[in-house]
Amino acid sequence: MNKNKEGLLIVLSGPSGSGKGTIIKSLLAGREDTVLSISMTTRAPRPGEVDGVHYFFRTREQFEQVIAEDGFLEYAEYNGNYYGTPEAPIRRWLSEGKNVILEIEVQGAEKVMNHRSDLVSIFITIPSIEELERRLRDRGTETEEKVRGRMETAGWELSRAFRYDYVVLNDEVEAATRRINTIIDAESMRYSRMENTVLEVLRDVSTQ
Amino acid sequence: MNKNKEGLLIVLSGPSGSGKGTIIKSLLAGREDTVLSISMTTRAPRPGEVDGVHYFFRTREQFEQVIAEDGFLEYAEYNGNYYGTPEAPIRRWLSEGKNVILEIEVQGAEKVMNHRSDLVSIFITIPSIEELERRLRDRGTETEEKVRGRMETAGWELSRAFRYDYVVLNDEVEAATRRINTIIDAESMRYSRMENTVLEVLRDVSTQ
Repeated sequence: MNKNKEGLLIVLSGPSGSGKGTIIKSLLAGREDTVLSISMTTRAPRPGEVDGVHYFFRTREQFEQVIAEDGFLEYAEYNGNYYGTPEAPIRRWLSEGKNVILEIEVQGAEKVMNHRSDLVSIFITIPSIEELERRLRDRGTETEEKVRGRMETAGWELSRAFRYDYVVLNDEVEAATRRINTIIDAESMRYSRMENTVLEVLRDVSTQ
Repeated sequence: MNKNKEGLLIVLSGPSGSGKGTIIKSLLAGREDTVLSISMTTRAPRPGEVDGVHYFFRTREQFEQVIAEDGFLEYAEYNGNYYGTPEAPIRRWLSEGKNVILEIEVQGAEKVMNHRSDLVSIFITIPSIEELERRLRDRGTETEEKVRGRMETAGWELSRAFRYDYVVLNDEVEAATRRINTIIDAESMRYSRMENTVLEVLRDVSTQ
């Protein structure tokens, strides 16, 4: 494999409760060539959340400065807080040959996909709506009202799956992780990524 | 996985001596969901070649009848013999959910790719030109002149790799086989192939 290859930019989305976070943790544990992009937000850290690990926690002024510099792949405001995907660290990782995963909710993912075409997009889906409900309740952090709201949103989110290159069923974390590994490995064999391997041999043919 | 899914049509090409045949044998031994398309030819069978297994051996009259019926995905004449890919058995396998591999030389592969867009194309490449030369000589069936001719053709063939979705390096049969398996598995997770899985869940959401 060519060491100078750019990494893959991977958008990973799916309904809230589809298990994106758990799958990504399992994926990153097995791949040194892949990193998770860190979002920037103006919301307060939850207990245990660390700046620069879970999010870049910033003030509204700081966030709006990055907006002014056109430094986000996408950003949005929810419940009075900004959330965004800063582009600079992503560019750096990709140029170092790292695959970068953007874990992003469905609306934000579409903004990124409209913005850049040089990416691999993966939608995580669920075995059944009952399973989604169970997962949302098992978190124990959501009120009944919030669970109902998320279930409704999930319907809309599922209807947007057609925007993605791939759909991965999360019936079981290990299987879903394996599926995403398969997609990353296949995408690394795209002509554009293998071009140098072919051209090196071609050069030898012409000098014979 | 949905049992009613159509199989993948896979074009597998690459220079003569790139090891397509060996890889395909190894691939088919490991996948019951995949079959190799059988070409039709007017050339005489070589020792050990069986009609309906290695080729459909036909007369010129029979072959030209299929041409007249527009029954080939592609066909060509080499050294006074016809070679072609009959479409009818491919359609049948695909509708039964089987992946169908077309092992086809580079010029024929381009005709198929111009003809159909609903396929996955894989170019098998070689680690070096020296290795290709060694493989061609190891066959023991080629004259010195033929080896030189094939080496020259290989240069042109390598220059056409950009037409393919994927490039697979055949440095070692087992590794190359694993790579093609990875591509087939990833392609089976394309949105179009996973649509039913998503729609089934969506149906449940709307009836809740």
